[in-house]
Amino acid sequence: MPALPVRDDLRTVRPYNTRPFSSLVDPVALLNNNESPRPPEGRHLEVLRSAASLALATANRYPDTDLGTLRAALARYTGHGVRAEMVWPGNGSNEVLLHLLLAYGGPGRTALGFGPTYSMHEQIATITGTRWISADRGPDFGLTREAAATAVERHRPDIIFLCAPNNPTGTPLDRATLDVVLRTAPGLVVLDEAYVEFSAIGSRAGLLAEHPRLVISRTMSKAFGFAGIRVGFLLASPDVLAPLRIVALPYHLSTLTAAVALAALEQADELLAHIPSVLAERQRMRDALVGAGHAVAPSDANFLLFDTGADSSAVAAWLARQGVLVRDVGPAGWLRVSVGHPDENDIFLKTLAEFSSK
Amino acid sequence: MPALPVRDDLRTVRPYNTRPFSSLVDPVALLNNNESPRPPEGRHLEVLRSAASLALATANRYPDTDLGTLRAALARYTGHGVRAEMVWPGNGSNEVLLHLLLAYGGPGRTALGFGPTYSMHEQIATITGTRWISADRGPDFGLTREAAATAVERHRPDIIFLCAPNNPTGTPLDRATLDVVLRTAPGLVVLDEAYVEFSAIGSRAGLLAEHPRLVISRTMSKAFGFAGIRVGFLLASPDVLAPLRIVALPYHLSTLTAAVALAALEQADELLAHIPSVLAERQRMRDALVGAGHAVAPSDANFLLFDTGADSSAVAAWLARQGVLVRDVGPAGWLRVSVGHPDENDIFLKTLAEFSSK
Repeated sequence: MPALPVRDDLRTVRPYNTRPFSSLVDPVALLNNNESPRPPEGRHLEVLRSAASLALATANRYPDTDLGTLRAALARYTGHGVRAEMVWPGNGSNEVLLHLLLAYGGPGRTALGFGPTYSMHEQIATITGTRWISADRGPDFGLTREAAATAVERHRPDIIFLCAPNNPTGTPLDRATLDVVLRTAPGLVVLDEAYVEFSAIGSRAGLLAEHPRLVISRTMSKAFGFAGIRVGFLLASPDVLAPLRIVALPYHLSTLTAAVALAALEQADELLAHIPSVLAERQRMRDALVGAGHAVAPSDANFLLFDTGADSSAVAAWLARQGVLVRDVGPAGWLRVSVGHPDENDIFLKTLAEFSSK
Repeated sequence: MPALPVRDDLRTVRPYNTRPFSSLVDPVALLNNNESPRPPEGRHLEVLRSAASLALATANRYPDTDLGTLRAALARYTGHGVRAEMVWPGNGSNEVLLHLLLAYGGPGRTALGFGPTYSMHEQIATITGTRWISADRGPDFGLTREAAATAVERHRPDIIFLCAPNNPTGTPLDRATLDVVLRTAPGLVVLDEAYVEFSAIGSRAGLLAEHPRLVISRTMSKAFGFAGIRVGFLLASPDVLAPLRIVALPYHLSTLTAAVALAALEQADELLAHIPSVLAERQRMRDALVGAGHAVAPSDANFLLFDTGADSSAVAAWLARQGVLVRDVGPAGWLRVSVGHPDENDIFLKTLAEFSSK
């Protein structure tokens, strides 16, 4: 026991488990984290290395806290009329969401999400003392405007979390559902667009100009293949972002992180050129899963949620013993698998078929 | 106004001001942030660049969350019997202190500090909803065992902050004062050793084995010249550190940051070989200031607190207009100046003399 007990409301909270199986065996298919299977290569890697080299030469000085150049680059990348003063970058989207909840959540305030959804939203609410309210998605993992409106009216939450597309289901968010939430929400509406680059719908950042309660979270971890670098950002009106300067720690983003993020953004077009191949591979995996008799949720992201028809935790553990890592995240019987490298996807499909024929 | 007002208890809180004057003129002496004046150079810079290059090649994968290699290297560097499981690294000491206060602070809990002291301790307490209690140092900026014991008895704080040496005064912490606080504290005792590499006393990490309520915070920003990279760490018993896994965000430290920190630690001996020259320069600056009639607080760090004999904010603003940045942090009339490059220190001394003779 520590000399001081942990905060009362954290006593039953568990840490986010980043690697439930990873120590069991050397993995042959890393399909549990929705990462990009493509490491930086060739000219792109050289540009990143040059940026890091330059940044390291000033390592003794504190970083630029304004991050103006990075915010401008993120605004240009985002498009939809987003300006630099509407961008708030940090060490991954989790950190910028923590900033948001530190400023606007806390004891006496509530946050609503629609499960199954990204579990860090609830974790960040809990960490900041914000009471989490979970409402349910429909049986097909969709979120109708009626279900959303009912939950908003019933709970009147200070902060509402939506994901477009949703994680771990992959399901898109209807414009009608977003509209009714934006119209009826009493406080802020956070739209998590972590996987938006894979979506047929695209970003809703164009709505920021007319909806001052909208906050969009984005990440470079997925489509940019930058999971190891930790860069995420919020998009919102400057009024919403201003108080984040109080709760963010000074110099929260390092000189090195800012420099390599900037270098990656300058190559955004080439870097994102692989997305059509991810979508083709997603279709191939879906077809194979459906062909093998699995139900698969509609996916607008770089992963699929499928029904194992069995005990999902047993299936996930068995796959892990074969070196195939997927994620047991959601509803009973279902598993989430990332769209990885074609070779990894083949191994996954073959190994899953072996489980089914056991 | 945002659609949701900021948390009630943050309404009067101001952001930490990282650059009150920096936009006024191109600085010629950066003596406001207690940075190392030495950028990475030569073989050291090449080693850092190699580490960054290697790390960038796996940027698409999430970082190792266990950070075992880095924790082991930080433990080896710290010495005093510290083991890897007693080390908690993060993006600067502010972030690891935030983790500590998120886990052990919060509404209904209190944190005590002895002012003038490092202002981020109060800021981090406030951000986490922990009530901050300020007790005073003596007129010479020291902290006697009697004053410390009286404050601890009176307030019975959950968390006590001490700095050794203290920032912004530079004053050392007596062993007798630390002992009485460790003996009488009802909760945790945080000893901030950000500047310990410049101290004649050295780290108190050897006390961790016998004092389970002791938490030491350290940083690579100062003596290591790594302010731009953002690496800090806590030292404490594994029991104290375990709950930090709940409140820290998954993958909080990037692959890139961990890699260059590790590379710097492997060169610790060479990197810290410059410290005697900093201490000699500190003595030279002190002698010059005393010779010019200024009172100077005893310093065990890489900065000096001196009495301007005038309105310190006016002096700081005037110096900034000449491109000389120092920090107006503490008691009325006094300013804090970093021990910088000898050329910067000369410019500071000359410019200050010009103010005095105006």
